[in-house]
Amino acid sequence: MINTEEFYSILASRMKASSIREILKIIQNSKVISLAGGMPDPATFPVEEIKEITQKILNQKSAQALQYSSTEGLKELREFLLNYLLSANRKVDLSNIIITSGSQQGLDLVSKVLLNPGDLVIVELPSYLAALNAFRSYGGETIGIPMDDEGMRVDCLRETLIQLNKEGKKVKFIYTISNFQNPAGVTMSLSRRKELLALVKEFKLFILEDNPYDQLRFEGEAIPSLYSLDEEGYVISLGTFSKILCPGLRVAWIMGNKEIIEKIVIMKQATDLCSPIFNQLIAYEYCSNYNLDKNIASNVEIYRKKRDVMLSVLNKYFPRETSWTKPQGGFFVFATLPEYIDTDEMFMDSIRAEVAYVSGSPFFADGKGKNTMRLSFCYPSEQDIEEGIRRLGAVIKERIKS
Amino acid sequence: MINTEEFYSILASRMKASSIREILKIIQNSKVISLAGGMPDPATFPVEEIKEITQKILNQKSAQALQYSSTEGLKELREFLLNYLLSANRKVDLSNIIITSGSQQGLDLVSKVLLNPGDLVIVELPSYLAALNAFRSYGGETIGIPMDDEGMRVDCLRETLIQLNKEGKKVKFIYTISNFQNPAGVTMSLSRRKELLALVKEFKLFILEDNPYDQLRFEGEAIPSLYSLDEEGYVISLGTFSKILCPGLRVAWIMGNKEIIEKIVIMKQATDLCSPIFNQLIAYEYCSNYNLDKNIASNVEIYRKKRDVMLSVLNKYFPRETSWTKPQGGFFVFATLPEYIDTDEMFMDSIRAEVAYVSGSPFFADGKGKNTMRLSFCYPSEQDIEEGIRRLGAVIKERIKS
Repeated sequence: MINTEEFYSILASRMKASSIREILKIIQNSKVISLAGGMPDPATFPVEEIKEITQKILNQKSAQALQYSSTEGLKELREFLLNYLLSANRKVDLSNIIITSGSQQGLDLVSKVLLNPGDLVIVELPSYLAALNAFRSYGGETIGIPMDDEGMRVDCLRETLIQLNKEGKKVKFIYTISNFQNPAGVTMSLSRRKELLALVKEFKLFILEDNPYDQLRFEGEAIPSLYSLDEEGYVISLGTFSKILCPGLRVAWIMGNKEIIEKIVIMKQATDLCSPIFNQLIAYEYCSNYNLDKNIASNVEIYRKKRDVMLSVLNKYFPRETSWTKPQGGFFVFATLPEYIDTDEMFMDSIRAEVAYVSGSPFFADGKGKNTMRLSFCYPSEQDIEEGIRRLGAVIKERIKS
Repeated sequence: MINTEEFYSILASRMKASSIREILKIIQNSKVISLAGGMPDPATFPVEEIKEITQKILNQKSAQALQYSSTEGLKELREFLLNYLLSANRKVDLSNIIITSGSQQGLDLVSKVLLNPGDLVIVELPSYLAALNAFRSYGGETIGIPMDDEGMRVDCLRETLIQLNKEGKKVKFIYTISNFQNPAGVTMSLSRRKELLALVKEFKLFILEDNPYDQLRFEGEAIPSLYSLDEEGYVISLGTFSKILCPGLRVAWIMGNKEIIEKIVIMKQATDLCSPIFNQLIAYEYCSNYNLDKNIASNVEIYRKKRDVMLSVLNKYFPRETSWTKPQGGFFVFATLPEYIDTDEMFMDSIRAEVAYVSGSPFFADGKGKNTMRLSFCYPSEQDIEEGIRRLGAVIKERIKS
C-alpha cells in the first residue's frame, strides 16, 4: 500500500478537518436544533420562477447553456451586476469583474494570486472561519485587529502596520466583511470606511471586501461599499447570489482593478476552466426579467422577523451574565458569555441538550474568544429559534457561578 | 493608484495569458473554422431530457437543489459512479470518491494537495496543456516521457526515475491520459498499464489518471482503467460528465484512496465549499432514470463519423510530407509536419486563411514539438472539417520545400 501521508504538500499537511463540521454532519438528520450553519431559509428561494427560467433557457439557448463557456463568465450578467451594484459615475467596465463559483472561490483565487507562504493578511477579530482557512491554505498568516461598533479599529490597524513595517514583514491585504459581519454582526460605518481607504492608500495595501450580506439590511440606511468608494484600484470586492437568490447555483463575483481581475482570470483558467454557464444564465435571466429587488425585500422581511425572535428570546432565556450583538442585517448574532465559560468545551453538552451553535474561538486569529459563540437565525424556523435558545440558555445557566 | 504587479505571489506572477487563447476568443464569431477547441458537439446534449429533469427536481426537491450541499458531493451520484465505473469485486466505498467542478478542478485539487514548489510531475510527451498549467500553478515542474503506440514508454520512465533518484529529486506523481490521449490520441495498452503499475509500486509514486474520454471508444475493446487495476491506493483517477452528458453542468469526479480523498475534501472546503448540487442532481437523475449508455452510444456514432471524415480529408488535402494519428476514440488527431515548419509561426497565416488549430509545442514539457499541431473533430460540422482541413492543407503546402 502507498503511504499517502508522505506525499502531502507542506500546506496541505497543515489543513485539518474541523471536528465541529464533522459533528454537525452527524447531527444533520437528528432532533438537534441547529443554530450553527449559515444556510439561507429555503422559503426565500424563488422556485417557480427558476422553473420557468430553466425551461426558457433550455428551449432558447441549450447549445450555449450546456457547453463550456468563458473563464470570465457571462458577459450580460457581469454587465448587469456592475450597473446594479455601482452608481453611473463609478468608472468600471467588464474587465473589472469576473464570475466565480461562490464567494469561497473568490477568497481562494485572490489568495492564490496574492499570497506567498508567510505573507500576512490583516483580519477582523473575530472573522469568517472559511476565509481564514482559504488564506492559510496558501500559507498566509493572519493578524487580527479588534473591532468596535463601527467596525475594524483603524487606529489599532495603523499601529500594527507601523510595527510590521519596522519588522520588515509583508502585508498583502486587509480582509473585511464590511456589512453585518460574520460572525460579529457589526457593520463598518461610512467614516470608518473612509479612514480605512485613506490608510491603505498611505501604506499601499489591498482591501479584500467580502460583502455577501450587502442587500440584507433590516433597518437603517445602506452604506456605500468600500469598492464603490475607491477609484484607485485598492479594493477587491466579493459578492454573491447565495443570500439573495439561492446558494445552490454557486454564482458569485469578484470586482477589482483590471490588472488583478486579468490575473485572476488566468488563475481561474487553471483552477476550473469556467463556472457553469447554465447557472449563470439562470441568475441573469432572474435578474433581467424577474424582480430581484422584490425578492430581496421579501427575504429581508423573513430574516428581520427571525432576528427579532432571536433577540427577544435571548432576552428571555439567556442569563444576565451574557451579552450579544444586535445586527441590523445578515444572518448572525454573536454572544459573549462570562470568561470562565469555554464554549468549545460546552459544545458536547449542548448537543446532548439537542441544540448546536458554532463556538467562537476558531473565528479569532489571535486564539481568543473562548467564551463566545455564533448563533444563526437564518435557517431554523421561528419556533426552533425560540426552542433552541431556550435549550441553550439552560445549558449556559448550569455553568453560571453564583 | 495601486501597483498591482508588486503584489502577486511568486507562482501567480509566472502564470501568463495564452496568446492563442486570446486569439481564439477574438475569432469566436468570425468565419474562421476552428479545429482548435475541445468543445463537444451540442447535438450530443440530451436537451429534452434535461428539461424534464430540471422540472422534476424543482418540483420535488427544490429546498435541497437550491441550497448549499456537502463538499464531498451528492451521495447517490457517487454511489452510481462507483457502480457504473468499477466491477463488483473492486473494493470501494463512498470515501473513495468526491465530486468536483469539472476535471480541471480535479487537477487543481490534486496539485494543491500534493505539490510543493519544485516537486516533479512526470507527464507524457505531449500532454494536456491545462494540466501542465495546473501543476505549474503550484510550482510543480514537469518532466516529459516519450510515448509510442502503446502509451508512455515505461522503459524510458524507469531510467528517468533512477536518474532523478540519484539527483535526490522528489517525484510526486505520474500524470497520464490513459485513453485517446489529449493531444496525441494514443491509448495505453493493457500490458503497458500493468508495467506502469508495477513501476509505481516499486518506486512508491502516485499515478494521476485523467480519463475524460473513457467511454468515447469508436472501435476495439475497452481496456480497464488504471484505477480499476490498482488495489493498493496508487492511482488517483479523474472522470467527467463533460464528454458523455454535457460540459455546462461542470460535474466531474476524483476517485482515489480514502486518505487522499479525505485530504482533497478538506482542501475543496477551503476552495469553493461545494459544487452546485442542482447540477449534481441533474446528472444523477439522468444517470438513474434515463439511458446514459444509449446516449453515449449515439455520441460515439457522431464522433466516429467526424473522425472518419477528418482522417479521410487529411489524406486528401495534407501533403505527403505530413503524418497524423488515427485515434480509436476521443476528440483529437495530432499531426506532425516536416521539422522545418513551425506551427506557432504558421498560426497567423492559417487564421488569415480562416482556419484555426492548436500548435503543438505548448503540449510538450520539453519545449519540442514545434512542427506539430492538434486538430479537433469534436465540434465542427462534417462540412467544416473538410473545408477546414482543405484550407489548412493549402497553408501547409505553401511551406513545403520541394
